[in-house]
Amino acid sequence: MFTTAQLAEKIGARLDGDGSVEIKAVSPVASASATGITFVTDDKHLADLSKCEAAAVIIDKPAEDFGGVQLIVSDVNAALIKTLKLFAPKLSVPAAGIHPSAVIGRDVQIAKSASIGANVTIADNVRVGENSVLAAGVQVGQNSTIGNDTRIDSNVVIYHNCSIGSGVIIQANTTIGSTGFGYAQVDGRPVLIPHIGGVIIEDYVEIGANCCVDRAKFANTIIGAGTKIDNLVQIAHNVIIGRCCLIVSQVGISGSSRLGDGVIIAGQVGIVDNVNIGDGVVVGGQAGVTKDIPAGTKALGSPAIDYAEKVRQFALMNRLPETARQIKELIKKVKALEAAADDKK
Amino acid sequence: MFTTAQLAEKIGARLDGDGSVEIKAVSPVASASATGITFVTDDKHLADLSKCEAAAVIIDKPAEDFGGVQLIVSDVNAALIKTLKLFAPKLSVPAAGIHPSAVIGRDVQIAKSASIGANVTIADNVRVGENSVLAAGVQVGQNSTIGNDTRIDSNVVIYHNCSIGSGVIIQANTTIGSTGFGYAQVDGRPVLIPHIGGVIIEDYVEIGANCCVDRAKFANTIIGAGTKIDNLVQIAHNVIIGRCCLIVSQVGISGSSRLGDGVIIAGQVGIVDNVNIGDGVVVGGQAGVTKDIPAGTKALGSPAIDYAEKVRQFALMNRLPETARQIKELIKKVKALEAAADDKK
Amino acid sequence: MFTTAQLAEKIGARLDGDGSVEIKAVSPVASASATGITFVTDDKHLADLSKCEAAAVIIDKPAEDFGGVQLIVSDVNAALIKTLKLFAPKLSVPAAGIHPSAVIGRDVQIAKSASIGANVTIADNVRVGENSVLAAGVQVGQNSTIGNDTRIDSNVVIYHNCSIGSGVIIQANTTIGSTGFGYAQVDGRPVLIPHIGGVIIEDYVEIGANCCVDRAKFANTIIGAGTKIDNLVQIAHNVIIGRCCLIVSQVGISGSSRLGDGVIIAGQVGIVDNVNIGDGVVVGGQAGVTKDIPAGTKALGSPAIDYAEKVRQFALMNRLPETARQIKELIKKVKALEAAADDKK
Repeated sequence: MFTTAQLAEKIGARLDGDGSVEIKAVSPVASASATGITFVTDDKHLADLSKCEAAAVIIDKPAEDFGGVQLIVSDVNAALIKTLKLFAPKLSVPAAGIHPSAVIGRDVQIAKSASIGANVTIADNVRVGENSVLAAGVQVGQNSTIGNDTRIDSNVVIYHNCSIGSGVIIQANTTIGSTGFGYAQVDGRPVLIPHIGGVIIEDYVEIGANCCVDRAKFANTIIGAGTKIDNLVQIAHNVIIGRCCLIVSQVGISGSSRLGDGVIIAGQVGIVDNVNIGDGVVVGGQAGVTKDIPAGTKALGSPAIDYAEKVRQFALMNRLPETARQIKELIKKVKALEAAADDKK
Repeated sequence: MFTTAQLAEKIGARLDGDGSVEIKAVSPVASASATGITFVTDDKHLADLSKCEAAAVIIDKPAEDFGGVQLIVSDVNAALIKTLKLFAPKLSVPAAGIHPSAVIGRDVQIAKSASIGANVTIADNVRVGENSVLAAGVQVGQNSTIGNDTRIDSNVVIYHNCSIGSGVIIQANTTIGSTGFGYAQVDGRPVLIPHIGGVIIEDYVEIGANCCVDRAKFANTIIGAGTKIDNLVQIAHNVIIGRCCLIVSQVGISGSSRLGDGVIIAGQVGIVDNVNIGDGVVVGGQAGVTKDIPAGTKALGSPAIDYAEKVRQFALMNRLPETARQIKELIKKVKALEAAADDKK
Repeated sequence: MFTTAQLAEKIGARLDGDGSVEIKAVSPVASASATGITFVTDDKHLADLSKCEAAAVIIDKPAEDFGGVQLIVSDVNAALIKTLKLFAPKLSVPAAGIHPSAVIGRDVQIAKSASIGANVTIADNVRVGENSVLAAGVQVGQNSTIGNDTRIDSNVVIYHNCSIGSGVIIQANTTIGSTGFGYAQVDGRPVLIPHIGGVIIEDYVEIGANCCVDRAKFANTIIGAGTKIDNLVQIAHNVIIGRCCLIVSQVGISGSSRLGDGVIIAGQVGIVDNVNIGDGVVVGGQAGVTKDIPAGTKALGSPAIDYAEKVRQFALMNRLPETARQIKELIKKVKALEAAADDKK
């Protein structure tokens, strides 16, 4: 619990109103209670704010019709993130050191400040950096490296020869460095092409739960710095993803495709192999990308085309019954006109 | 092996025929052999029953043209479930108690009748109820609670501050309580919004393998009592699902969307964030739900619309080549009519 | 590092050029460097080969305009696979024997040459064949069997009564033998139908990471010999898959559906329950299969229809704006013709 004055100081806000009000929770405008603080990150929440009974609001300009305390900041998102950290449940921090049940290979270097959880296995020649936390049940293969301040959650499997950067988060049950789906027909049967490459996960990448990132056939599968990936996402061999991309749940990106920087891929999108998605591209949900997409454009549909064009197409598809009716009527009318013309001959 | 008389008694059926016939297996009508018992849960199986060589059938009214023994019950499904339990492979029951390799935190309360498997880790302040079974490799985070008669299968990861009810089943490699995909742009880079909420899995929920249920940003992600979820399903932060819903494999439900009671979502459906799906709604496979769906209706397509309308639209899409031909012919005919009209001027 | 002469000998190639050139890497034509060997598995790479600076190429007929050493073979894929194995990172081989942290049940038979990793649990009455490797964190249920030369990667969960063949690979975090999604309504609530069947994974099947293969309600879910499955794939109860199929990432196959031999299912395809997919069928990405598909044909779309027809339909959908314009013009012209005809009456 914090007073509004304490919160204003901690998040660097200008306090507009009573500094002694006690705040017990953080909530969105729609569900805030009288002991909570809320926030306006989008003007569309302003209308509801006047009806919101929250004791206080974090906002970037004073709201006239809100009766509570106002904490004015220049960047509401940044202030909200600070506030949420203050109200986050207090959890005990994983202890530095190696749990006695962990199984550690030869020539392994683990920083003293790192925390290696119960039943973790670390194969030969692995390095783990400062302050990194490997939770219980994590498995790390030979020659892989993990940077500093990185968090690998329970039961994640990292195969051999993978490089995980610093400030990375990989959530539970995700697999990094699995062999990709590359088969050649030999004597009429599919035979696995050995995948001799690795995976590079750059700094500040965050990967959700139950994802798969395949290792490269040659060279490396690469996920660029600052890119964030949701749950149950598939990244195939030799995919190269740029910086600060957002990839939503259940997306699948096929072999050797490339994403530029700042690309946003909505949920359940599929991307075929060997295509290039330019910087800043946005792909709408459930799209099926079958060819290159130029930088700065939006795509939608399966197969994916220009976003606005697809939206128009959806509308025309909904008009198909009317279209069918119009054609039927036209056929009838033209027949009548033809008959009339014949009569006059 | 049971005789037909024994089976009739055990499942509460009226025996119509020889009670001494020995039954060795349970099978569907299509594959039943002469030593097996079959069942009719749907009238469409009746036609095949006359040709079925099964020794016996579980059915709700006597079938005239079936030569074998008939076990007449009022509810075939309930009787079938009882029968299958009789024929299920006999497995040794997990022993009550804590396996010596399990790692247990402080202030943990585990019921004496509960079974904690090998290499399980349980963090501080966790509670596990009577008769619950945590299989090998399960990881449970701080402050989480597990009710009575609940089964958590191998390698499931439950993060901190999650509440799992009684009579729940969570299958292998599923992740509960992962941090959701919520990022804000701060200084031009995506920064994680702390997720200070939890997850509530109510009683009798069953969740398949390799699913993800994200924790809430605020308050709780909730899965209502009796809801059943298939494999590889994604439930995002702050989703609220009602009671007795059925959610088929590979569905993705985005943040803060709500499902009523008794909703059925078919395979690979995607639901965007912040929509309301009313009670009893049925959504067809691979649909993409982009807006609210009223209670009691059916939806289909991506983007999803009314089911019957979409089916008609699919038919009209299949007629597009014919439509194109008709338009081409109309253009030609109209041109001819115009030419003829011109000639007469 | 190998010389071109050494490589030629090891992969059984005819050497055309200098045998003393040192080769340090294998790379595709597009990214090969001056110290590498490349390969031509597809004529479309031939055009780029002349501009490729690779020191050597594996090819099935001499390329006139390539300046480097040529290793001529009859089957480039087979030679490439041999070459990649030569250049694969050298990893220490898992030691035969049972890691002291593994927990082994009663009546278990493990071949002396098999390797059972750290924190593996093996339940009662399990058999593991010669040279098979169960990596750290694998869980195997009662009565299951694993053949020879099979590799089960970290944190895979195999439930009870599953039969895994020889030469099989199952990658990390995959679940085999989970209970399928089969519920019956009893007293108005969904109640699980006991799944008393098992799973049979035949020889040389390879399954990616984070997949789910459900056990059968009756009899067995079967994956035929030589079939290869990518990551995050869902195989439901009682599915029967033929031999040497290729099933790409995020595909979902619903209950009791059957695939013939040599079927190819592209990424994110969904297949409803109880359909038959004939031998050699190819289903395009994101298709939704709702009915049987005859052997030897190709299908596409959701709902899936004949491939060529669907491609034509996609083109016509892209022409819908033009179609709308044409109809509007026709309506206008017909109205004018009708007016003119009226005037003449």
